[in-house]
Amino acid sequence: MTDTSLKELELIYQKNASKVLQEYFDFLRFKSVSSESSFRPQVLACADWLKSYISELGFHAELWETPGYPTIFASWNGAGPDRPTLLIYNHYDVQPVDPIEEWVSPPFEPTLRNGNVFARGAQDNKGQCFYVLQALKILMERDGTLPLNIKLCIEGEEECGSHGLAAILDGRKKELKADYLAIVDLGIRSALKPSLTLGIRGIVTMDVEAFGSNIDLHSGSHGGLAFNPIHALVETLAKLRDPSGKIAVPGFYKNVDNLSAEQTEGLALDFDERNYEEMFGSKPTGGERSLKPLERNWLRPTLEINGISGGYTGTGFKTVIPAKAHAKISCRVVPHQNPQKIGELVANFIEANAPVGVKINVQVHPGSGPSIHSSPSSEAAKAFAAAFSEIYASPCKFILEGASIPIAAKLALASGSELVLLGVGLQSDLIHAPNEHFGVDRLEKGCLMMARGIELLGGRQ
Amino acid sequence: MTDTSLKELELIYQKNASKVLQEYFDFLRFKSVSSESSFRPQVLACADWLKSYISELGFHAELWETPGYPTIFASWNGAGPDRPTLLIYNHYDVQPVDPIEEWVSPPFEPTLRNGNVFARGAQDNKGQCFYVLQALKILMERDGTLPLNIKLCIEGEEECGSHGLAAILDGRKKELKADYLAIVDLGIRSALKPSLTLGIRGIVTMDVEAFGSNIDLHSGSHGGLAFNPIHALVETLAKLRDPSGKIAVPGFYKNVDNLSAEQTEGLALDFDERNYEEMFGSKPTGGERSLKPLERNWLRPTLEINGISGGYTGTGFKTVIPAKAHAKISCRVVPHQNPQKIGELVANFIEANAPVGVKINVQVHPGSGPSIHSSPSSEAAKAFAAAFSEIYASPCKFILEGASIPIAAKLALASGSELVLLGVGLQSDLIHAPNEHFGVDRLEKGCLMMARGIELLGGRQ
Repeated sequence: MTDTSLKELELIYQKNASKVLQEYFDFLRFKSVSSESSFRPQVLACADWLKSYISELGFHAELWETPGYPTIFASWNGAGPDRPTLLIYNHYDVQPVDPIEEWVSPPFEPTLRNGNVFARGAQDNKGQCFYVLQALKILMERDGTLPLNIKLCIEGEEECGSHGLAAILDGRKKELKADYLAIVDLGIRSALKPSLTLGIRGIVTMDVEAFGSNIDLHSGSHGGLAFNPIHALVETLAKLRDPSGKIAVPGFYKNVDNLSAEQTEGLALDFDERNYEEMFGSKPTGGERSLKPLERNWLRPTLEINGISGGYTGTGFKTVIPAKAHAKISCRVVPHQNPQKIGELVANFIEANAPVGVKINVQVHPGSGPSIHSSPSSEAAKAFAAAFSEIYASPCKFILEGASIPIAAKLALASGSELVLLGVGLQSDLIHAPNEHFGVDRLEKGCLMMARGIELLGGRQ
Repeated sequence: MTDTSLKELELIYQKNASKVLQEYFDFLRFKSVSSESSFRPQVLACADWLKSYISELGFHAELWETPGYPTIFASWNGAGPDRPTLLIYNHYDVQPVDPIEEWVSPPFEPTLRNGNVFARGAQDNKGQCFYVLQALKILMERDGTLPLNIKLCIEGEEECGSHGLAAILDGRKKELKADYLAIVDLGIRSALKPSLTLGIRGIVTMDVEAFGSNIDLHSGSHGGLAFNPIHALVETLAKLRDPSGKIAVPGFYKNVDNLSAEQTEGLALDFDERNYEEMFGSKPTGGERSLKPLERNWLRPTLEINGISGGYTGTGFKTVIPAKAHAKISCRVVPHQNPQKIGELVANFIEANAPVGVKINVQVHPGSGPSIHSSPSSEAAKAFAAAFSEIYASPCKFILEGASIPIAAKLALASGSELVLLGVGLQSDLIHAPNEHFGVDRLEKGCLMMARGIELLGGRQ
């Protein structure tokens, strides 16, 4: 029966394939860059186009106004009130395209080369959004119905913080209510081996500013007199980590689970260090030295300085003791850690370590998001893992993700649903970079995986 | 006799005062910015104008070609071969004017307000150069001769490293030969109390680059895997100084004299910490905590991070682990330290402290300059100190300067002369900054101080 269903769905997909590609290209042509206000008309036009497209699938689709860009909300309740509901999350906005000169073909003119579609958003997240819609379409086309109720939540500000959607969640709990939530914005660890993501880390960010004198000073006339705020910053930030790679802020690891067999059981923690060095040109030596790479990346909190600046950094030399210096820091947190509190711990530690003569202020930003983990034995995890195994003809592994999707935890909470994170992205897709691309084969595989996952979750084998 | 001479010179200066101001303004109108090549014609025009002006004083003046801008060399040997020779150094180039919008009046339209002339170069160094020329003029006008032989060396690249003049010094030893060298590019510590500078620190500069991965990485997906080069840089640079403020590089203080009574005798080491805090908005807590502020600034080597950069530092946030991070460092050195060797010590220390996973390269720049000190009992120091005391009716103090003039030591060596560093600049003149200015009263005081100093050095009381 399984084989039959998959074969039927494949045939329908392939029959429609050239039209699907055409429509996917239409979707990619919208310059829906959410972080740059000059693209506003294109972002709005993209939302309108997508709403119409979803309406034609037989869904009730509407645009939810937010303080930022609208969220598309769509629902199909034809399975009836006694059947479960799956809420699926995607986003229609994309990253900026700079450096534009590094693109082989223009980012908003989708181009097919060697089986890959090159365009901004080809994978993240228009590609993954589009195969979700195709999954619904082929199920509808074959069965005239769906095996459970489906809700779609497709936002327009994922690439700049999800502030609009976050602001309206509390008022939309009733509409969002669901049993399962699938965040389809993730990937698999290899093109041949499927995996399902059971959790992500949370995040909190902060800006650090060190203030010395009221003007820039000459480093000869004042060297030995003024306390250089770059030195103050460097010395204070160095205290954040001890020689073993642990974060030295008291209380930072409070509530963090010790790594138990239970916690790591079933997780694909194998990691090829040589392959990592070949890909990125440096050894994976970050984080706590006593742990394995993926334990450090998935199960332990980290602190990274994401930016630092101060003084003169152009060509030549300027012998200045600058008036101030600045850094940006983010912490990734794990379950049972409150990201805002972790931010405040770090901020207090930094401010308290400022030397006499330099003042250090830390601003912890609002909008942090907690970590969220789900169980491999949840109905949704089991259904999509089985679908992945079937499509890839290889057992689906369970993984975690070191990155954060702050809206995921908020959306799971607002909808009262159990979360699963998935997708068919690959690290080589160059999302957020020039020449982003997505394989035509993965557009199909993603579609079939979603369709079969929905079927399995709906009780059909 | 002293009083008579000073009074005579004052009268001549004042008789010429309005013409002097007019000519000083002509000098200031040249946009002789040496560091920006678009100003080249103006720099060369300024050199021509100045050469003509000096010729009219009765000097033999010529332009010495260099790999950069020409140096004006002028000499008057009328005192005869049995009389001593004083070589005087100034420069006719000026700093850039940015930020231009902060100037109250345009930087190359000299404007007189409240007894101050506002213009780029008003003090540094056109003002100080111009009163030297007026001193020669009034002596000539009164006596028809000078009490000793005078050579002038006025370069056009002091603000961008003095590379041109440095390159030709070896070939010009014969012309430059002198008994005394006066570098007239310095200042006094208060408008009412004169001081003479007996020494400056040397300098060496370097660029530091930390390399991690071959591309920028996402700090969530790679946090705990990649070693962040900003962390590597911050942790390595923090090791450069110990908690007492001492530089922790082994060998850094080798050859540095312990501060003996002999070394500090006669130096005006008094320092008003409260006044410093009021002026600059922060306490003078830099350098070695166990020493006095001016000991740290004058007599001890220092190391300053002049710039640091890495990752994303704009508005908003980008959760990046950058591929690299960068810093600029300069060390100020004291007598008996070889600046180039000190640079290499620091470079080796930094490179050796790079953690596994990050490579750190340090490039020590050529063109460093040593520290140079002269004796308070030299003939030139005694003569100019006496002139200062007379003009200001207050005893002249001896001071040092924490900053560096790399060409000073080289010029003293090439000319075989004993150095003295002087000038009537004040910290409040805003040299190198918007609204640079110089007091009309100090133009006169500087002129009279130089004229009387030359007289006293020539043996006239």
